[in-house]
Amino acid sequence: MDNHAYMAADEKIEDLGFAGLKILQKVNGFRFGTDSVLLADFASKNARGKLLDLCSGTAIVPLLLSQEKNVLHISALEIQENVAEMAKRSVLMNGLEDKISVTAGDLKRADEYYTKQSFDAVTCNPPYMKVGGAIKNELDEKTISRHEVMCTLEDVVKTSVDMLKANGRLYMVHKPTRLAEIIAVMCRYKAEPKRMRLVYASKGKEPSIVLIEAMKSAKPEIRIEPPFYIFNEQGEYSEEMKKIYRVL
Amino acid sequence: MDNHAYMAADEKIEDLGFAGLKILQKVNGFRFGTDSVLLADFASKNARGKLLDLCSGTAIVPLLLSQEKNVLHISALEIQENVAEMAKRSVLMNGLEDKISVTAGDLKRADEYYTKQSFDAVTCNPPYMKVGGAIKNELDEKTISRHEVMCTLEDVVKTSVDMLKANGRLYMVHKPTRLAEIIAVMCRYKAEPKRMRLVYASKGKEPSIVLIEAMKSAKPEIRIEPPFYIFNEQGEYSEEMKKIYRVL
Repeated sequence: MDNHAYMAADEKIEDLGFAGLKILQKVNGFRFGTDSVLLADFASKNARGKLLDLCSGTAIVPLLLSQEKNVLHISALEIQENVAEMAKRSVLMNGLEDKISVTAGDLKRADEYYTKQSFDAVTCNPPYMKVGGAIKNELDEKTISRHEVMCTLEDVVKTSVDMLKANGRLYMVHKPTRLAEIIAVMCRYKAEPKRMRLVYASKGKEPSIVLIEAMKSAKPEIRIEPPFYIFNEQGEYSEEMKKIYRVL
Repeated sequence: MDNHAYMAADEKIEDLGFAGLKILQKVNGFRFGTDSVLLADFASKNARGKLLDLCSGTAIVPLLLSQEKNVLHISALEIQENVAEMAKRSVLMNGLEDKISVTAGDLKRADEYYTKQSFDAVTCNPPYMKVGGAIKNELDEKTISRHEVMCTLEDVVKTSVDMLKANGRLYMVHKPTRLAEIIAVMCRYKAEPKRMRLVYASKGKEPSIVLIEAMKSAKPEIRIEPPFYIFNEQGEYSEEMKKIYRVL
């Protein structure tokens, strides 16, 4: 079937440039970014078995992780019905309906859709920004994707731990300015941070993205990986970025 | 007076190569390292007023910070009597007895020596290693300096918060593998991590040292500074290291 049959008028098809994957995105809506691609790469090192992707959006993380040979199945949960519906069409368009199942729903009610303690890993690219007073009135798609309107960091960690098997792993991408809160919340819910990587646009800058892997009920001890630079000193993608950034 | 008058037979005088400062060290005991020098530099950015240095050892951090113009007075607390006594002689040798006062005592009883909530900043280079079963029997100087025999991370943070004024700052240097624990404990005691720097021996390596500044009762939001490299690609001290590493 022609890919365009899956597409609505305000959408476009983007080629992920990797394993023939394609994704539907709104022309004017929230679009996935480098952070989702880095999260999928970061998770691919250890993730295996049955995965759950929270705040899944267009299902970019499940689509990328679906190509990892140790990943058996991915459940994608997205609160915005129209976005979840588009993600479903992306999955169909890629013929991945046996590997990825998309659910429209609230992660705070995840136990209504999934069995507790049944996942080997959870991935999540949550909204990064706290809710200020003014924002609650504008509930458009971009606001919901970027601000903690529908769920907080604590909701995400709590649900992840509920859904993970013992020693299951949680992979999260976030803003470095919230690192202390992320670690404190993870520790409170017994998701022990075990691996971290800071992502810098380029040398000499402060980091723009943090990637964290936590393990449910593990002993404390975190490995901090070398800095990841997106651009080299000539302003081109770094070698490491070229290797993983198969998208664009 | 001749500096040697301050020195015991098993000690030597080391020139700090900075402001004419000198320090006494045991020939065969625990000697201060790069981490203390980096801590003093990291703290010098914002520390002012009345300071308390916990786990002070040879008083290397107070000696270095005594030269900062906004630092008025530093109290140094060290549990090992012989080490504290040597630190006192180092202070006298430098003529800094009005600026630094050394106390031999246990930080868990800090309120017996100092007034609670009276310090603008606390610095600490605590023991990095957890206590294993075997270690408790060997209570020599190096073991006490390196392992949590006499105090734990939690003791250090609790005492620091007790001693700090509102919005006072805690500066700590530690091993990056313990970062998650450090942040979780700081958050539990309302010392909010506000600034962090990871120190790498050289490019491509995992970090060997972490520097953290926390503020008592502050709002969450942490600034992560660019990576600090000790050596450049030619294996020499980096420019940044040369600037602060006045000690050798």
